[in-house]
Amino acid sequence: MKMTNYPKSVVIEEQGLRDGLQSETKVVPTEKKLDIIDALLDAGVKRIQVVSFVNPKVIPQMADAENLFTALKKHTGVVYSVLVLNPKGMQRAASAGVSHATASISASNSHSLRNTGLSLNTARRQFSEMVRLGKNSGLTVRGGIQCVFGCRYEGRIAPNTVMDMIKEQLDQGIDEIELADTTGMADPRAILEICGSVRDLAADKPVYLHLHDTEGKGLANALAALQVGITHFDSTFGGMGGCPFIKGASGNIATEDLAFMLEQMGITTGLDIDRIAAISWSLEDFFNKRFSGKMHRLLAREDIQFKR
Amino acid sequence: MKMTNYPKSVVIEEQGLRDGLQSETKVVPTEKKLDIIDALLDAGVKRIQVVSFVNPKVIPQMADAENLFTALKKHTGVVYSVLVLNPKGMQRAASAGVSHATASISASNSHSLRNTGLSLNTARRQFSEMVRLGKNSGLTVRGGIQCVFGCRYEGRIAPNTVMDMIKEQLDQGIDEIELADTTGMADPRAILEICGSVRDLAADKPVYLHLHDTEGKGLANALAALQVGITHFDSTFGGMGGCPFIKGASGNIATEDLAFMLEQMGITTGLDIDRIAAISWSLEDFFNKRFSGKMHRLLAREDIQFKR
Repeated sequence: MKMTNYPKSVVIEEQGLRDGLQSETKVVPTEKKLDIIDALLDAGVKRIQVVSFVNPKVIPQMADAENLFTALKKHTGVVYSVLVLNPKGMQRAASAGVSHATASISASNSHSLRNTGLSLNTARRQFSEMVRLGKNSGLTVRGGIQCVFGCRYEGRIAPNTVMDMIKEQLDQGIDEIELADTTGMADPRAILEICGSVRDLAADKPVYLHLHDTEGKGLANALAALQVGITHFDSTFGGMGGCPFIKGASGNIATEDLAFMLEQMGITTGLDIDRIAAISWSLEDFFNKRFSGKMHRLLAREDIQFKR
Repeated sequence: MKMTNYPKSVVIEEQGLRDGLQSETKVVPTEKKLDIIDALLDAGVKRIQVVSFVNPKVIPQMADAENLFTALKKHTGVVYSVLVLNPKGMQRAASAGVSHATASISASNSHSLRNTGLSLNTARRQFSEMVRLGKNSGLTVRGGIQCVFGCRYEGRIAPNTVMDMIKEQLDQGIDEIELADTTGMADPRAILEICGSVRDLAADKPVYLHLHDTEGKGLANALAALQVGITHFDSTFGGMGGCPFIKGASGNIATEDLAFMLEQMGITTGLDIDRIAAISWSLEDFFNKRFSGKMHRLLAREDIQFKR
């Protein structure tokens, strides 16, 4: 029998408060966000992307970035991450006392132009400025690349473009890498190829894989990634989040679904999955909608009793 | 970079007409079922489980088994499969002119007792009678085992029980094996272990893996199965089907989602995924509900234009 070597443990960065909430028009009050963060900590989460420093007129859900970050109770061993998309965002994050930020740009020229008005080359120059500002203020910086596995305007992105961007970001001094499958277009073959190459290139730096489940391949892609040594993942409680191009499409891979699969495989995550499911379940009530994950619904319902 | 050997092609048995429809109370008229079968053939499907020969009082959706099978247009190279759960079902199938049947029993004693009133040992004796009846009438028989990876009453099923049942069924002369993850409890580690062992045991006989997506691991489990030489899968259009224990839970893995992932990985299925998506899309209208698959919704909507 041919077996596969899987890692013993995996680190999950919970992104429900950022990638999950950002597409919701009903704004979550800062106090409620703080309660969710407390509940996540109780569930054993050690990395939380709590907010993005972006234009509050474009994303009102993130307008409380400074207030939220200032109000956060800091804990040893807990990383509060934020997302920034331009130098101004990095400056705001540094001023708010953030110690770890993800600076992210797209690998697709068309996606970059439509979302930010910047060509890919201009965005890459801006990225170096974001890293410089962050490092000068003492932050650790995760370099994020969006649309690594494809874009709805351009289709597939040449792997060479991605590899070239990562080399550049590593030269600029990023501490971690994030590969985002923004569109859910990755497949296990592409994951093996690209994540395998990036893992080799990154040496001892963590490589986070940020997967969306738009096409249903989220957990299959996570499985493929484990096989080429990826041990860091982004996910959102309940699989919250959407896709701006496809109304009703799935969001990120669900934290509960990912962690449940990993634990069944004997890979520890440190998460109390039932507690995370309870958060998702209560937020389904708050937003009056069903998130696209599976396990939160199975685990949080007291009327369902079954063996696991 | 560590790569994995995947097969070049995969065979999919479409089970939407049986496992998809059986849990729906709105009965699909025989004429409409025949139209769906024609549409599936147009989409390149070569194996279709068209109906089950079960008690029409328990499953009214399958009450037209004889009429449907008699009315089917037979085509060279197309296998119409049916499901039978007891000797009476096999006799009815043989009388109706069926040439290929899946005879299925559960690997869980509790599940068997609750669903059929038979203990596991009694069900195993009945299984041999089903095979004898089928083979004597000239049918090829697929031996199906339900709850291979777990049962909601008993939890995990001992792999030795499954292996022992398969050895017994092979000795009785079955032509093919079907391992059913009836509850969606399989995980990639269990798939590698059990499917790997069964694949070795089955020699040149096809081993079909029947996956449910109840816990969101469906395609990840399919991926793991490919790695231990499984090249035959059951699935349903749109991911139709349910779970009697968990209302609103997902059904089978969706034919479109499975085939789309496989094709992206360079593994051919022979299926026209857009045509299958159109069937699922029209059936969502008929049943006025959303199926749990992803790709049928993305592919069938003419208002969405995007690169793949």
